[in-house]
Amino acid sequence: MSGKDISRAVIRRLPRYFRYLGELKDEGVEKISSQDLSEMMHVTASQIRQDLNNFGGFGQQGYGYNVSYLYDEIGKILGLYKEHNLILVGAGNLGHALAGYMNFEKRGFYIRGIFDLNPELLGSKIRDIPIMDMKDMPEFVKENDIDIAVIAIPKAAAVSVARTLVNCGIKGIWNFSHVDLEVPPSVMVESVHLSESLMRLSYNLNNYEGNK
Amino acid sequence: MSGKDISRAVIRRLPRYFRYLGELKDEGVEKISSQDLSEMMHVTASQIRQDLNNFGGFGQQGYGYNVSYLYDEIGKILGLYKEHNLILVGAGNLGHALAGYMNFEKRGFYIRGIFDLNPELLGSKIRDIPIMDMKDMPEFVKENDIDIAVIAIPKAAAVSVARTLVNCGIKGIWNFSHVDLEVPPSVMVESVHLSESLMRLSYNLNNYEGNK
Repeated sequence: MSGKDISRAVIRRLPRYFRYLGELKDEGVEKISSQDLSEMMHVTASQIRQDLNNFGGFGQQGYGYNVSYLYDEIGKILGLYKEHNLILVGAGNLGHALAGYMNFEKRGFYIRGIFDLNPELLGSKIRDIPIMDMKDMPEFVKENDIDIAVIAIPKAAAVSVARTLVNCGIKGIWNFSHVDLEVPPSVMVESVHLSESLMRLSYNLNNYEGNK
Repeated sequence: MSGKDISRAVIRRLPRYFRYLGELKDEGVEKISSQDLSEMMHVTASQIRQDLNNFGGFGQQGYGYNVSYLYDEIGKILGLYKEHNLILVGAGNLGHALAGYMNFEKRGFYIRGIFDLNPELLGSKIRDIPIMDMKDMPEFVKENDIDIAVIAIPKAAAVSVARTLVNCGIKGIWNFSHVDLEVPPSVMVESVHLSESLMRLSYNLNNYEGNK
């Protein structure tokens, strides 16, 4: 992989290519033209060619893309063939839902431990993953080679938990708390702000001409 | 509100302005300069002025922004002062988590009914909201003036549920299923693809120079 900067827009689109190629692969499709992929995905064929050229192309004029090969290559670019050790912070409703997603493991993301402040939850398990005391989190992170923390707690606590995690050497945070976390540039943060997503839907409903 | 097209990038940022202004309001701050807002939000002051100029500005040279006024105006633009009637389709882990978010009601989004295919769940409730049979969904949508459906079911079922909802006159879909829904242009879809978000985090971890 070259070290050149790939635009954020391309990175945003990569997982979607991966999803469509995975579906084609499951259906037994062996090759696809950029034109056909374009029609499936509702993006222009030239956009697809441009996006994939960022990573060296993969296509062959007149042949199209080899589905299985392209799927694997994008998976590698996305880092999906490495194993990641995760902890989940917050075993509330959302934490439960996230811990329940078996699909993440298929992609190499393993939740090794769950932490919560609620003493009533301690000692119980979600899918065989133990819920532990927050005070044991720093040691657990260090001893179990944890690289990603999933934060699903109210925003008031999220900032200090993130600070603790950064001090423990965490490399990535998947943030569901309703706050922007301030971390050093070496720590990657990907946030899912659900209420902001709902507001965008609301905006679009409110501003669609036919709804006025 | 003018009918002019606001770029998607601006719309993406609006809920974040709303969140920061809400926090300032809660802290009792009455006015803020674009410079101070810029430092809090880590976007340039000129970006803030440009963004807000799309909606008529709201700022006064040398005075800054009136926090409470700007908060309310952005809330109006986002359609948050209207009441929305929602149904939730899918009472699994994620559906449970979404139904449990009281915060959405504060913004005018009321879940009126929950639908699931699992017969064991029928008749039970989440936060006093009844879980009903999918076959009763079309009638419920029409009779209760439902404008938004939250879809939190596996992708295999999501496509046909979305089709049914469109036929019932739904106006917006908040889609958590791992599939792109095809709907007429009059139906707004906002998707939250969790695994794509996790893949972006993975990409950033994988491609950060210090992690290589």
